[in-house]
Amino acid sequence: MQKLFVIKIGGNVIGNDASLQHFLHDFALIESKKILVHGGGKIATKIGEQLGIASKYINGRRITDAETIDLVTMVYGGLVNKKIVVKLQALDCNAIGLTGADANIIPAVKRSVKEIDYGFVGDIDAGKINSTLLESLLQQDITLVIAPLSHDGKGQILNTNADTIASSIATSLSKNYEVRLIYCFEKKGILENIEDENSVINLITKEKYRQLLAEKKLFDGILPKIDNAFAAIDNGVAEVLIGDANDLIQNTTEHTKGTLIK
Amino acid sequence: MQKLFVIKIGGNVIGNDASLQHFLHDFALIESKKILVHGGGKIATKIGEQLGIASKYINGRRITDAETIDLVTMVYGGLVNKKIVVKLQALDCNAIGLTGADANIIPAVKRSVKEIDYGFVGDIDAGKINSTLLESLLQQDITLVIAPLSHDGKGQILNTNADTIASSIATSLSKNYEVRLIYCFEKKGILENIEDENSVINLITKEKYRQLLAEKKLFDGILPKIDNAFAAIDNGVAEVLIGDANDLIQNTTEHTKGTLIK
Repeated sequence: MQKLFVIKIGGNVIGNDASLQHFLHDFALIESKKILVHGGGKIATKIGEQLGIASKYINGRRITDAETIDLVTMVYGGLVNKKIVVKLQALDCNAIGLTGADANIIPAVKRSVKEIDYGFVGDIDAGKINSTLLESLLQQDITLVIAPLSHDGKGQILNTNADTIASSIATSLSKNYEVRLIYCFEKKGILENIEDENSVINLITKEKYRQLLAEKKLFDGILPKIDNAFAAIDNGVAEVLIGDANDLIQNTTEHTKGTLIK
Repeated sequence: MQKLFVIKIGGNVIGNDASLQHFLHDFALIESKKILVHGGGKIATKIGEQLGIASKYINGRRITDAETIDLVTMVYGGLVNKKIVVKLQALDCNAIGLTGADANIIPAVKRSVKEIDYGFVGDIDAGKINSTLLESLLQQDITLVIAPLSHDGKGQILNTNADTIASSIATSLSKNYEVRLIYCFEKKGILENIEDENSVINLITKEKYRQLLAEKKLFDGILPKIDNAFAAIDNGVAEVLIGDANDLIQNTTEHTKGTLIK
């Protein structure tokens, strides 16, 4: 099977022009098929403030009311997505920018209101991703740049977590590609000792994971990321890597610098 | 050859939710292949005001400075484009929204500064439109929704007139399709008597055009539109129609209500 990289970048890269340019330069050099999933929350917050739209959070999670969904549609689907596409074009990487509404790529269901009303937030199912068009574009040597927006099929755009979109797309395409899903984050990888930036754990297998859990070596915040990684692997993704955006070139080879989960 | 409609809608339709919904309902019913090119200047002006970005004009033409190009990238490429896409999806029309930067569809050259510096405005050439991807998408029964943005290939998005984008795309696709280019505007069609809304001229051939010019029956503002229409026809477009967005259904049949130019 052909190799495919599904790479997710977040606000720490997108929000800084120099970091973004550096990252996209490295990204454009990847010779295999590739998909970039981006966030953009910090820019949305900044433009929202200029528009008088306050960012609202409950338990640390953004609430997407009517004016906020318009805001993130503009910022994620327009400003951030097209800025990435146009920069990739300049780097001779033929990119196309899409949201989950485009060609019905990512159908979603609006999250039902229980204790908290998250507003216009979409829950997605990897089994429902429309991978046919994605594969057709990849086969035309087009690189996909995907904004974290889905839609309900009834005319409403929905805000969806970029990590979840990345893992769902990776899972959906793993039928026909050997997929490495890469999460770029603010550290070099998962650390054996949170105090020591150089204590990156290079490989986590299920066995190693059980061992690390038993030794209580993993800090709480990282557990959901590893659980999600194994969920992706159980559903067909070959490997998940968690690492620094600056190490992208090494992390797309066998000589990874981040944490490989497989 | 297969029939293809390239339809341009402007601010009077986009700026009003009920008009837009009505238009998209009719648009979704068109059974032939179809492309929608949209503007969005009025919404950009409104959101620009909220952001403290004043719209600047010289001789009635918008000047696109650095903050304005970010604004129109958000509004045209994000808010308006995705709102149209998501509404078409709800009408069972499988639409994809694109700018000219996506997959390098519309390469452009930044307008050179002579007497006026228009800023980040792109001049385009129908011969340089990358129609391969457009045709591949149309063949997959996907409807294209195109925002009036191009790019310079060096990392800069550029603002480009939606009428020009519509005629360039129509021309570019006329090699493989029988194209009718439809401009939706605020009147039923071109009027023989500007005072009489019912005096629509149903057909303008080159001969009829010369006759109308000799009789000085056409008001000045409409002349560039007709000249552009004949330019498109001279470059392969089968027919150009100028008419009311409300008459779209008739105007996509042989029983047109607007002004057909051929």
